[in-house]
Amino acid sequence: MTSGKILVAQGGGPTAVINQSLAGVVLEARRFRDCTRVYGAMHGVRGIIDENLVDLTRETSQNLEMVAATPSSALGSTRDKPDMAYCAEIFKVLRAHEIEQFYYIGGNDSSDTVRIVSEQAQQANYALRCIHIPKTIDNDLVGNDHTPGFPSAARFVAQAFAGANLDNAALPGVYVGVVMGRHAGFLTAAAALGKKFPDDGPHLIYLPERVFSLDQFLRDVKDVYARYGRCVVAVSEGIHDASGAAIATLLSQEVERDAHGNVQLSGTGALADLLCDEIKAKLGIKRVRGDTFGYLQRSFIGCVSDVDQREAREVGEKAVQFAMWGDRDGSVAIKRTGFYSVDYELQALQDVAGKTRVMEDEFISACGTDVTDAFRMYLRPLLGSGMPDAFRLRPAPVKKILKP
Amino acid sequence: MTSGKILVAQGGGPTAVINQSLAGVVLEARRFRDCTRVYGAMHGVRGIIDENLVDLTRETSQNLEMVAATPSSALGSTRDKPDMAYCAEIFKVLRAHEIEQFYYIGGNDSSDTVRIVSEQAQQANYALRCIHIPKTIDNDLVGNDHTPGFPSAARFVAQAFAGANLDNAALPGVYVGVVMGRHAGFLTAAAALGKKFPDDGPHLIYLPERVFSLDQFLRDVKDVYARYGRCVVAVSEGIHDASGAAIATLLSQEVERDAHGNVQLSGTGALADLLCDEIKAKLGIKRVRGDTFGYLQRSFIGCVSDVDQREAREVGEKAVQFAMWGDRDGSVAIKRTGFYSVDYELQALQDVAGKTRVMEDEFISACGTDVTDAFRMYLRPLLGSGMPDAFRLRPAPVKKILKP
Repeated sequence: MTSGKILVAQGGGPTAVINQSLAGVVLEARRFRDCTRVYGAMHGVRGIIDENLVDLTRETSQNLEMVAATPSSALGSTRDKPDMAYCAEIFKVLRAHEIEQFYYIGGNDSSDTVRIVSEQAQQANYALRCIHIPKTIDNDLVGNDHTPGFPSAARFVAQAFAGANLDNAALPGVYVGVVMGRHAGFLTAAAALGKKFPDDGPHLIYLPERVFSLDQFLRDVKDVYARYGRCVVAVSEGIHDASGAAIATLLSQEVERDAHGNVQLSGTGALADLLCDEIKAKLGIKRVRGDTFGYLQRSFIGCVSDVDQREAREVGEKAVQFAMWGDRDGSVAIKRTGFYSVDYELQALQDVAGKTRVMEDEFISACGTDVTDAFRMYLRPLLGSGMPDAFRLRPAPVKKILKP
Repeated sequence: MTSGKILVAQGGGPTAVINQSLAGVVLEARRFRDCTRVYGAMHGVRGIIDENLVDLTRETSQNLEMVAATPSSALGSTRDKPDMAYCAEIFKVLRAHEIEQFYYIGGNDSSDTVRIVSEQAQQANYALRCIHIPKTIDNDLVGNDHTPGFPSAARFVAQAFAGANLDNAALPGVYVGVVMGRHAGFLTAAAALGKKFPDDGPHLIYLPERVFSLDQFLRDVKDVYARYGRCVVAVSEGIHDASGAAIATLLSQEVERDAHGNVQLSGTGALADLLCDEIKAKLGIKRVRGDTFGYLQRSFIGCVSDVDQREAREVGEKAVQFAMWGDRDGSVAIKRTGFYSVDYELQALQDVAGKTRVMEDEFISACGTDVTDAFRMYLRPLLGSGMPDAFRLRPAPVKKILKP
């Protein structure tokens, strides 16, 4: 390095542990004597072209640790997707500030941003080391055992369904919980980890990896309700019919899209309400309730996996080590090496950018509405320590006198 | 006591700590040598008339402790509201089993049930000690400083808004979170405890204690958005117009009512969606998201106030002491005796049954969309220990080179 300046930014949807990765980059970079300044861009790549930069070298390590334990993106985020012209603006600013390393913490779309910036830098013959640091509650980055942010969101979803199941057992009826996940069902599938006893919910899980049929859904709910007198359902916001059309948008008149062309699915209770209305109308069940977990699941403060926190910190640290001691751009990936341990590799950017991992078939039961034990084994260690547990009274019926 | 048999049941909406009160009754009753059996009725008063009873004396204290720490009603709940005929059925069963004490853990409606049963018992000349044990996340029982269940739900709401605010700061826009509470705004007001820095959300809080005007709401949101570039709003599901009509039902074609005549407000995202649609249409703000917290807030496993757990246990214990050593029926009430400490009294049933406490004027700011410091002082100790905290990076802007 010559200038010794590096820049870090955060993109896409926030997570509970994305600031751990930020702290990992800043604190690890400070250990390299060549590194003189760690800049942060406010609101992702948007902050670069706006030249809205902050000097993270001036932060105390104490406050960085406190920020690391705080959910959501401390530098702010963006949904901007840079094209050629946007990248030219990025270069102008990076060059003016003599930035030599660019770290972008983000998911699918952000990895594609890093790939474009990296290619543009090479074409412009600008010596810029570009590293993508993984983050997404969707767990849909290829080449990763899992992605930071997913375990904490999964912990929230598992705990939410554990509670919803207890509530539903107390006041029986049908409960539908809608979980985030556009193409990948990992987060919705995490609902299964809220289940303890054989008759616990979620009794049915609907994933975007399988075609959704409203008729089959109603038959499934009817069967479970007949069996247990109640039914708890986990539904991915991304469920779609055979044509690929999202069930959530079947009702909507206007469809909102972001810069990446993604249709807005979260932030509305429409899908849960649609499914509940169908159950009430077609099955004649009176007590039907729908909740949409929405934004609670990705930034809830105080429901975080310690494993997730530790790994999110490490991907930030490893990113700096790959940049300082390596000779190529790339994306940090988590590899599982034991039950349970992980190590980190640097993937080529083109191997991850713009690609979407979905749930492997081995994780989905043959019936399509449950997960397998392989998935439970995969997810359990990620949820971390101190998972709350649910207990029941043991049956001890009193002999009836009046109605024997 | 002659038979030495007592009966306990749980009614109304579950809470995170209602099983603490159950364990309090069972474990305290076992310490009285006159008490030979503690029965539980499954699903509230419904379990009595169905003679669906369990013998809680056969439970281990270990398992009772584990169940106590598990959210929702371990005995099941009901929304049934007994009339004269229903009470005659209750007596038949209680008499057949020689029950001498009846404990009912519940809220507003349940306290009215206890009052009716108590009066019917007196009219029938049946020696039955009836004790109501308070429980409701709505915090709307008169004569109580607060009610068990409310502090844990308030902790959930405060943490949810702390996270939602961080998320909204990262990706600015308007966020509307709808919180439970039909007539009393306490739980919605708890959102204010998620706020740390002066520009944090929730920026606006709408309570059922004040008349809601859609026009004023839009002006409020517009003002905050102009000031901060974002806006986080907490809304009670019970907000209503000047005529008293619930805003949530303005859209609905069919209105669902329970046995107590209450309109269904929870379990649907309609109110949040209505408000978000209005903001998009009238204010032209693009990124508008609405979440309805729904059932997550009352039975979430792993987000419980330790103060709430302790007090919920104590109201159960005190109920038994009042019954064993006292000479009248009543409702256990929490009185605040210090900052922070409490003691318990036995209220007359007619003083609490069928009455609804709403937020005192001193807790609501003059503008009507915020809480006062008196409310913050009131609520903070109830949230318990270990509340997660949110930290920020401190400003250290880098001098602009290209756009000075």
